[in-house]
Amino acid sequence: MTRTPENLISATIFALDEVRRRAPLIQNITNTVVQGFTANALLALGASPAMADVPGEAGPFAGLADGLLINLGTPHAAQREAAVEAVAAAGTAGTPWVLDPVAVGVLALRTELAHRLLDGRPAIIRGNASEILALAGMGAGGRGVDSSDPVEAATEAARTLARRSGAVVAVSGPVDIVTDGGTPVRLANGDELLTRITGGGCALGAVMAAFAAVTADPLVATVAAITTYCVAAELAATAAGPGSFAVQFLDALAAVDAADLRTRARIS
Amino acid sequence: MTRTPENLISATIFALDEVRRRAPLIQNITNTVVQGFTANALLALGASPAMADVPGEAGPFAGLADGLLINLGTPHAAQREAAVEAVAAAGTAGTPWVLDPVAVGVLALRTELAHRLLDGRPAIIRGNASEILALAGMGAGGRGVDSSDPVEAATEAARTLARRSGAVVAVSGPVDIVTDGGTPVRLANGDELLTRITGGGCALGAVMAAFAAVTADPLVATVAAITTYCVAAELAATAAGPGSFAVQFLDALAAVDAADLRTRARIS
Amino acid sequence: MTRTPENLISATIFALDEVRRRAPLIQNITNTVVQGFTANALLALGASPAMADVPGEAGPFAGLADGLLINLGTPHAAQREAAVEAVAAAGTAGTPWVLDPVAVGVLALRTELAHRLLDGRPAIIRGNASEILALAGMGAGGRGVDSSDPVEAATEAARTLARRSGAVVAVSGPVDIVTDGGTPVRLANGDELLTRITGGGCALGAVMAAFAAVTADPLVATVAAITTYCVAAELAATAAGPGSFAVQFLDALAAVDAADLRTRARIS
Repeated sequence: MTRTPENLISATIFALDEVRRRAPLIQNITNTVVQGFTANALLALGASPAMADVPGEAGPFAGLADGLLINLGTPHAAQREAAVEAVAAAGTAGTPWVLDPVAVGVLALRTELAHRLLDGRPAIIRGNASEILALAGMGAGGRGVDSSDPVEAATEAARTLARRSGAVVAVSGPVDIVTDGGTPVRLANGDELLTRITGGGCALGAVMAAFAAVTADPLVATVAAITTYCVAAELAATAAGPGSFAVQFLDALAAVDAADLRTRARIS
Repeated sequence: MTRTPENLISATIFALDEVRRRAPLIQNITNTVVQGFTANALLALGASPAMADVPGEAGPFAGLADGLLINLGTPHAAQREAAVEAVAAAGTAGTPWVLDPVAVGVLALRTELAHRLLDGRPAIIRGNASEILALAGMGAGGRGVDSSDPVEAATEAARTLARRSGAVVAVSGPVDIVTDGGTPVRLANGDELLTRITGGGCALGAVMAAFAAVTADPLVATVAAITTYCVAAELAATAAGPGSFAVQFLDALAAVDAADLRTRARIS
Repeated sequence: MTRTPENLISATIFALDEVRRRAPLIQNITNTVVQGFTANALLALGASPAMADVPGEAGPFAGLADGLLINLGTPHAAQREAAVEAVAAAGTAGTPWVLDPVAVGVLALRTELAHRLLDGRPAIIRGNASEILALAGMGAGGRGVDSSDPVEAATEAARTLARRSGAVVAVSGPVDIVTDGGTPVRLANGDELLTRITGGGCALGAVMAAFAAVTADPLVATVAAITTYCVAAELAATAAGPGSFAVQFLDALAAVDAADLRTRARIS
């Protein structure tokens, strides 16, 4: 498939149908702040979430799951152990997995863990500009979950990281950038309210895992996940405030359809 | 009391009034994904939740609490220790407790723990068909939190498990089955949207503990909890999607009354 | 500044503007039940939340953060270690921090920890009457998160605790009391629905940390936080039930403005 915007939109529509038809089982080893919202986002989309993050269970479960998210938001000792175990089992089983290196570069413990997990060959890495710069060894890290660098500054870092890791790399921002090492795809959907609710970014990592579970090409899966997620955010943007937005966004994830995607998708 | 449907509806109405009047203190040792939703469900209903799941505190608290839920969704080492400690203290204090063996049969660690906890004599066990089959030693386990077996297949397992454990056993599904070892009661309320939000099943375990805290007969408590919970789900079923449903469901748990229960309860 | 009600209202309006303009980074070491709601409350208000509660990260992060909350709701071993580490680093860096001693006096483990943390000189302590009485060594403790003592009974304990610890002490109840050891300020805003959602009290601790991050005087920060929070609750009080209230409350935290505060603030 040539990656024209039209082809990517068609592939997004197909992949969303596949997620809803196959209800992939997505294992999430993610921070305790957003576990509920992440599970709700996956359920709204049509996937089946499981938060199997206990050492001794995380590995066996990664062999059963259709996709896996590793998010480093609150990497307690047990979760670190579970992440290492799950990534190894995912490698053996061929389960595609997504790495979300939250606040990497700011804090030493998770930075070391992220670099170690990279050896397990994630299918997709998502982060803000500061996180991608830090993971590529080209930046100083951000400030908590917020990026202190613009997306453009991370484009070269994203390409470098993609080539080195073999993963598709997505940099989040007002315009998202997705690259497998070649020319980046730019995705311009979304709404500022996504940054006013907790889990707005983290749940996207889980949604990427759901799309990767049903799509052979990780770049297509990444584009499809971001586009579906951010179009749903636009459908919810009439909300009166961040509380209502979170609710309407889940409704929109369940309702977003081919017509919405064709009308709204901004891929270039 | 003869367990006619009419008697069970009257007992449900009485028990709901008792929960609201006495605001029982319910201790929850439950998975980190649904702790917030579970606490909100108990508060909406009129009970008082506490998530005392720290080893060294869980036991002493079980002596103060009016009811206890043990849910094995994310059984980290500390939670496993807390569960064992709390169940022992609940036994000594006579605190009724509910076992929700999430994904038992799929993962060895929690399966072993569930069998060990059974010796502590839960008042109520709730699970889907796969979990009940696995706990009764009659099935192969499901796929994460989703059952791969129909409810009917688990009816005999539920009766066997009830007789062996001394607990009332509830099997969740489109029609729920409740048994103390004798003829099962069938409960046909609910809405499919309950399966599209995280905690839709888990919070019911906590609600069962709240009803068990104010009701001498665990079978009546179980029927009352399921009926109240599932009628509230029906009241919220006008929601535009899963996000709105979760919100309206909490409103409905606070508002559901005797007239709703008399009109809608489907017990046979 | 003389602490007249008028001056305190003006200071509240100024402080809220500062929170929104500076978006202070607030570190939360808080219970797993309310982490999501707490993060959402901070984001709605305009602050930037981070739940950095992992030993080895909590200390370094407290040096970067603008404010810190320590909430003892679910004090697992790792969180206890993180709390001690973060409080030490906050002291070194001059980061103001808030102590919320949930259920202190009821459970020995957290009571001991709370007393130890007091040596780290919190800027603000918030609790219900039972918790403040227990922390001052003058009461027997409450029942879980609910106070079994009226606010008035804790007024003297609050003044004693304030003088001894050097912190501003806030006692929550139908009328909140705030004292730095001198004459208490009384705050009469709020809505009963705040007690029907989980995190209604806990998130206020985080909001206090956000105001303390931008306000030199901890008493002013405390009054401003409570007043803003409780006026937002009043704006949301038209909700149909507790589920809707939580949503509308977050919307109101994002929308509450100077006119709302001038019209509604009840400070005496």
